Amino acid sequence: MKPRPYLQIPGPTNIPETVLSELSKPPINHRGKEFEDIVEKCLNDLKEVFKTRNDVLLFPSSGSGVLESAVVNLFSPDDKVITSCIGVFSERMNTICEKFGLKTIKIKKVWGEAITPDDIEKILLEDVDKEIKGVFIPHNETTTGVTCDIDGISKVIKKLFHPALLIVDAISSLGCLPLETDMWDIDVVISASQKGLMLPPGLGVVSLNDKAWAMYEISTLSKWYWDYKMVKEKLLSFQMPYTPPTNLLFGLKESLSLLLEEELENVWNRHRLMASSVRAAIKALGLELLANEDISSDTVTAVLLPESISYSRLSSVLKEQYNITIGGGLSNLQGKIFRIGHMGSIHHLDICAIISGLEMALYELGHEFELGAGVREVQKTFLKIY
Amino acid sequence: MKPRPYLQIPGPTNIPETVLSELSKPPINHRGKEFEDIVEKCLNDLKEVFKTRNDVLLFPSSGSGVLESAVVNLFSPDDKVITSCIGVFSERMNTICEKFGLKTIKIKKVWGEAITPDDIEKILLEDVDKEIKGVFIPHNETTTGVTCDIDGISKVIKKLFHPALLIVDAISSLGCLPLETDMWDIDVVISASQKGLMLPPGLGVVSLNDKAWAMYEISTLSKWYWDYKMVKEKLLSFQMPYTPPTNLLFGLKESLSLLLEEELENVWNRHRLMASSVRAAIKALGLELLANEDISSDTVTAVLLPESISYSRLSSVLKEQYNITIGGGLSNLQGKIFRIGHMGSIHHLDICAIISGLEMALYELGHEFELGAGVREVQKTFLKIY
Amino acid sequence: MKPRPYLQIPGPTNIPETVLSELSKPPINHRGKEFEDIVEKCLNDLKEVFKTRNDVLLFPSSGSGVLESAVVNLFSPDDKVITSCIGVFSERMNTICEKFGLKTIKIKKVWGEAITPDDIEKILLEDVDKEIKGVFIPHNETTTGVTCDIDGISKVIKKLFHPALLIVDAISSLGCLPLETDMWDIDVVISASQKGLMLPPGLGVVSLNDKAWAMYEISTLSKWYWDYKMVKEKLLSFQMPYTPPTNLLFGLKESLSLLLEEELENVWNRHRLMASSVRAAIKALGLELLANEDISSDTVTAVLLPESISYSRLSSVLKEQYNITIGGGLSNLQGKIFRIGHMGSIHHLDICAIISGLEMALYELGHEFELGAGVREVQKTFLKIY
Amino acid sequence: MKPRPYLQIPGPTNIPETVLSELSKPPINHRGKEFEDIVEKCLNDLKEVFKTRNDVLLFPSSGSGVLESAVVNLFSPDDKVITSCIGVFSERMNTICEKFGLKTIKIKKVWGEAITPDDIEKILLEDVDKEIKGVFIPHNETTTGVTCDIDGISKVIKKLFHPALLIVDAISSLGCLPLETDMWDIDVVISASQKGLMLPPGLGVVSLNDKAWAMYEISTLSKWYWDYKMVKEKLLSFQMPYTPPTNLLFGLKESLSLLLEEELENVWNRHRLMASSVRAAIKALGLELLANEDISSDTVTAVLLPESISYSRLSSVLKEQYNITIGGGLSNLQGKIFRIGHMGSIHHLDICAIISGLEMALYELGHEFELGAGVREVQKTFLKIY
Repeated sequence: MKPRPYLQIPGPTNIPETVLSELSKPPINHRGKEFEDIVEKCLNDLKEVFKTRNDVLLFPSSGSGVLESAVVNLFSPDDKVITSCIGVFSERMNTICEKFGLKTIKIKKVWGEAITPDDIEKILLEDVDKEIKGVFIPHNETTTGVTCDIDGISKVIKKLFHPALLIVDAISSLGCLPLETDMWDIDVVISASQKGLMLPPGLGVVSLNDKAWAMYEISTLSKWYWDYKMVKEKLLSFQMPYTPPTNLLFGLKESLSLLLEEELENVWNRHRLMASSVRAAIKALGLELLANEDISSDTVTAVLLPESISYSRLSSVLKEQYNITIGGGLSNLQGKIFRIGHMGSIHHLDICAIISGLEMALYELGHEFELGAGVREVQKTFLKIY
Repeated sequence: MKPRPYLQIPGPTNIPETVLSELSKPPINHRGKEFEDIVEKCLNDLKEVFKTRNDVLLFPSSGSGVLESAVVNLFSPDDKVITSCIGVFSERMNTICEKFGLKTIKIKKVWGEAITPDDIEKILLEDVDKEIKGVFIPHNETTTGVTCDIDGISKVIKKLFHPALLIVDAISSLGCLPLETDMWDIDVVISASQKGLMLPPGLGVVSLNDKAWAMYEISTLSKWYWDYKMVKEKLLSFQMPYTPPTNLLFGLKESLSLLLEEELENVWNRHRLMASSVRAAIKALGLELLANEDISSDTVTAVLLPESISYSRLSSVLKEQYNITIGGGLSNLQGKIFRIGHMGSIHHLDICAIISGLEMALYELGHEFELGAGVREVQKTFLKIY
Repeated sequence: MKPRPYLQIPGPTNIPETVLSELSKPPINHRGKEFEDIVEKCLNDLKEVFKTRNDVLLFPSSGSGVLESAVVNLFSPDDKVITSCIGVFSERMNTICEKFGLKTIKIKKVWGEAITPDDIEKILLEDVDKEIKGVFIPHNETTTGVTCDIDGISKVIKKLFHPALLIVDAISSLGCLPLETDMWDIDVVISASQKGLMLPPGLGVVSLNDKAWAMYEISTLSKWYWDYKMVKEKLLSFQMPYTPPTNLLFGLKESLSLLLEEELENVWNRHRLMASSVRAAIKALGLELLANEDISSDTVTAVLLPESISYSRLSSVLKEQYNITIGGGLSNLQGKIFRIGHMGSIHHLDICAIISGLEMALYELGHEFELGAGVREVQKTFLKIY
Repeated sequence: MKPRPYLQIPGPTNIPETVLSELSKPPINHRGKEFEDIVEKCLNDLKEVFKTRNDVLLFPSSGSGVLESAVVNLFSPDDKVITSCIGVFSERMNTICEKFGLKTIKIKKVWGEAITPDDIEKILLEDVDKEIKGVFIPHNETTTGVTCDIDGISKVIKKLFHPALLIVDAISSLGCLPLETDMWDIDVVISASQKGLMLPPGLGVVSLNDKAWAMYEISTLSKWYWDYKMVKEKLLSFQMPYTPPTNLLFGLKESLSLLLEEELENVWNRHRLMASSVRAAIKALGLELLANEDISSDTVTAVLLPESISYSRLSSVLKEQYNITIGGGLSNLQGKIFRIGHMGSIHHLDICAIISGLEMALYELGHEFELGAGVREVQKTFLKIY
């Protein structure tokens, strides 16, 4: 008999029972009133989760598809945009931009660092002719467990009266980390179903404001499936231009209810608490965090592997003995780190169990530390003992 | 208490219980062996359902997304292609081609007619310089319930030694109508999850042969999300370039098993039998079919509304009294026809029930006919009484 | 792929989706507030379905267990009671009485007839010393599809000022047939989960009034598991003396909600309509009903098999070709009748489908009749065409 | 959003996902081949779990019902039997015996102690006329978390050539603790669905050997529902004399498969390991176990409450903060102990999580101990560090 699974990859996440059960409801007519009511509710609730009054659009796609949608809807070939390379997903954003002929000014940093307001300010200051059309920022770089200061970056752009669009990849942050689309004045926010929204993959979401819509009007890149205007017009009557992912929307309605019932600020605080406790535990076990704590993510923690322990051994022991699935390092971090996701439906005892299992696996693999020391730090974090 | 639902729109279809229950399984690591085994099994079984040894690629998207994928992967701006207008979906294919700068030679016909081998032959014969790069054909035009002779069209292209790619939209035919990708030598076949594959929407599929891959190599249209080569390379290790739609793949594995266990030829014959019985019933009730029977589809039947009965009244009575959901006419057929879907998991008594309900609704709305006459024709079809 | 199942045995019945999904919820603490709230809601709603203000008690058992409970709680060895033999289940009641040493006055009738107020009056009139302690009546004899006039029988007992308890076996009638526990002044009503309550088997229910409680006080039969007083006292705090059938109670809460939402009178009328349509169809097919129509049950219809058709052939064809499961004749009716259950969650198109399938099976087996004639009668019943 | 529930009462237990999903399958004909196959498989697999070749019988009832069944089937009024009082459930067995007129020789012990072979030997030695007909022993007294030495007791009975039946209440031990029905020569073993069989309550099971059947033949107590012979005869054709609890049997088939796939000895060892770790943790937290460790149960641990902490506060904090549900003291142990169930589908990280939560609750309530010390003992037990 298998133990309960702990799916601690950095997304897709564990899905609450009530959401899972929505996913297996028989489909209904996607052109009928009953379905339109679901779409309407989802759109309204999504706006609350995005903290925005802007348009919110839905796509039957992975999150990466919505990244592409931002490029083809808002830009034209040869447009200059700022991208970054602080991990696989920010790198991917750069690739997509280049695939569609954009000129990217790529901020390269050691993986484990964040893009800062200063980084952006420096580039924009040099752009005296204000030729830069867009600034793509990953809110949360899942590769390294690093969070960027979106508010600060937005303030810099405004301070310089720079016209560039701010486009935030919030795929792994929405519904986990504080994100204030309107208060921070973010032009475009991109997200997807399989992280903080606690659903299976397959639904992409984007919010965009009037400034972004103005860019849409002058974009010359070809598009049909991703066409924001076409989608917006159909969503006015709570339909989509093509067959919508009905069952994911059944689930979305439920997961949004769960988030709003708990209240978004509480959800954010819960993620912060879980993450703090994980980091405290990691340090108590004599392991090193990849990122500095002031920029470390509340959804995933990247940990440097001790020299004597390979990722494949650690992940095998965790999986086989404890049914914990963790993530490894991607690209140039492969073999150097392991990652623990702690997003979505996650609570105190889940962290206790995961850290307990991690300790036992480390012990089995010969790492030296005081057994129980990690869990104790978790407990102290939860009990607010300092 | 609500009666059992009869979702008789022309897709999404009723989903078998065992498939529904797969959809609500907790997600697993999409980069682990367990998931890769599922993808491998799905790909192998899909090839059997496509009747092909060509590559089969998967996309987290609606079927329409895969239509777009064929354009951006296989063609270049100003390429000449044949498209058609015999309904909303063939029209959509044309729109997508034009959005991406292709030059379309559009075959327009009265809605309710099919594209024939002759239609294609005529155009190709005129194309003496063999400039036409692609022929887009809807296998089954859902708008009108019409099926095109794909085998015949393919034979014409071959007969003329014309190099144009044959691209078949099989979204509403795969797993329902006879489709022999390799035997008929179809270069590209496009389909999706929510029809014959008996799943919720959200997964697109395409098969393509070497001739299509050669076109991929010279295509100059920009692409990333839809990039066939990128997807193919990841699928070699049973992964996807972005987060795969995990739960739809759980369901796909089951629905493919159901199809192959019943045996594809039996599935096709069952659809033919269901469709014949519906058409026999419709005629017995004094109603008229939109399409000629020799081209009528085995997945959806379009019926002309009697003058005295509006679509909204008919669909309301069916829905409210009998929990039958039918489809209406689209675009210029709106208000003129109603459509009954009969695809996927559908059997003898479902048809008896649907026709019984239709009779009662027609009676209530004042249509004159012999009560029970439709069901009797259904029974006679099943019992093979002529 | 299997067609939708039609489980038309006379119970267990088809279970609505929302009830099924309650059954698979994880158990909760059966001694906690959350569970007690469920029990409280069930008890209150059950009283509405029983149409009573009497105590209602629950047992983790089949319905037959609750039949036994009435004997051991309310009577003593050598007590005289009236029982009947009009089918297997009334016969069983007699057996149980005898097993516990009661003296039974058994009304024997040809199977297919009902126990009438006259039958009871005759016996009670002869009982000048009023020695008879109880009258056991099956509200609905499932063996033959016959309903007894409980109101009339109760009136007779009252008219004669006879002290005998009236104990009604409502296992296959509660939630299907009109049953007015208080208005008809029934002392004890026994039922179970798997018929009109639309649940799996495993939960028995009994209602009893003060007159019955007085009998409890003087009963000398041994009991523990079935002890009414012990159960009543625990139910005061919404608990049970032993582990309660938690998941059936989750489901019961939902099924009672469905019944009360539809409104009990509507549920009764729906059953009457379904039954009338089945009987009309049967006659139209040239088959003969076992019971006279004035006493025929609205939950199950017993039909005489045509001479040329064996039960095993008929039930096989129905099962294999159409996935319809019917019931056969029990005991001395074996091989002579077949039975169609039509109770619980059953609606217009279900009957159309079942009768369509029955017609096709009869045709295949050589029975002569006008194909479609049964369905037409069903339709006419629903459309109120006379 | 609610955390994952930890239902750590001493049964009903957490139910594996695959079993839960069986419970919500639509019922099937309980008189058809498909169902009979399920019953047959269940009976065969149950024999493996009971480790017996004796008859195994099923009842739609709570476990307590099957306790009653043993009395009414195997004994007669005034029969002398040995019962015990070492907790609520052994006490209940005594009550049932007395309710049916048996003369009980009741072994009273301080709650927390076990019935020993010596206890039985002493009484049997005094019974020179061998008038004692039965010895009722609880294998596992859930009230106190104590396990009795069944093998030893059986050996004593055999050694003395005493004819008394040995009847073991294995409700809370079957599928958890080593139990060798045939090897230990136990005449009657009683169990139920909601503990080691990992199902909801509602199904009782009994195994009995020829010696017990001989007692059946001379028993004069009245019975019908519980009649072993009637049930056995119907089970020969895999049916029951009344409507079987269909959906519990669907689930039983799956849970038996899980147990036998893991292999029973492994299941027993797992329970032993979980229990050892809990006891080690409890001691490390400065708490006291109710029972001596040499007789302590591997399915539930009873812990003395520290003086300063009330049960209601402890259970509230555990429930509200951590969604852990524990059990309290019953009867005269109320307010003195708390109980942690660890039976069924339970694994390493579950124990880590539960003990972590317990520690945090104890800390919040002012208990003094080294935070993390309990979890460390759990880890050491699993890692076999001594």
